[in-house]
Amino acid sequence: MTYDPSNVFAKILRGEMPAETVYEDEHTLAFMDIMPRADGHTLVIPKSPVRTLLDASKADLATLYATVQIVARATVTAMGADGLTIQQFNEPAGGQVVFHMHVHVLPRWNGVPLRPHTGDMAPGDTLRAHAAKIRAAFQA
Amino acid sequence: MTYDPSNVFAKILRGEMPAETVYEDEHTLAFMDIMPRADGHTLVIPKSPVRTLLDASKADLATLYATVQIVARATVTAMGADGLTIQQFNEPAGGQVVFHMHVHVLPRWNGVPLRPHTGDMAPGDTLRAHAAKIRAAFQA
Repeated sequence: MTYDPSNVFAKILRGEMPAETVYEDEHTLAFMDIMPRADGHTLVIPKSPVRTLLDASKADLATLYATVQIVARATVTAMGADGLTIQQFNEPAGGQVVFHMHVHVLPRWNGVPLRPHTGDMAPGDTLRAHAAKIRAAFQA
Repeated sequence: MTYDPSNVFAKILRGEMPAETVYEDEHTLAFMDIMPRADGHTLVIPKSPVRTLLDASKADLATLYATVQIVARATVTAMGADGLTIQQFNEPAGGQVVFHMHVHVLPRWNGVPLRPHTGDMAPGDTLRAHAAKIRAAFQA
């Protein structure tokens, strides 16, 4: 499948749409999921125009998952999480909705199930507060 | 958390337990999940003694996800999948049951939900047949 540059994550990368960013480097960007299934739920994306796991380069994957780990560590610290669930969906059959490859970093706590996918956006204040906590954990 | 070498994936790596292997290289091993949530569900593990994402080295992550991609491509071909769901669980709160880091590669088809986690093992013949299909796709 070809990459369609009109997807919302491409717009975020081009600065055409806002995002609550928690981490950025040369190859990757991490920001809050606006429909979080757990408090502190972030997405990590490659800056390259990659649709799914299947068309990523080896270098894309290495830098992407290095950032996933960096964000995961900060998220556990920031959110006081007991664990993490990492998910990555490919094509509609695999659960993908935005067609720019992205990795979900979901902090988890003992006894707390993931919230269902409701399609409801979290309040901006909530997302900003969680992003600030996670950003602070990088500086700790 | 420390790494406990008595886990079942460490036993598979040491040859003390069997597994239906689909791919192996210097740093990684891929084999059938014995409780598949989709036909062709495999697990990819690092050979290093890594408990979770949090304690993996950057090199572990790079080689692990390179193999995830290799196995994912073969799985799509072998199983005629429309998409893939990739999951990786960390600590019990995150859904982890075996404490050697592992990535789930789940082929998906349009309109087919993942099967629930029943704890039932698939028949050996079924796992062997799916493994043979996936191994054949590497040679194609």
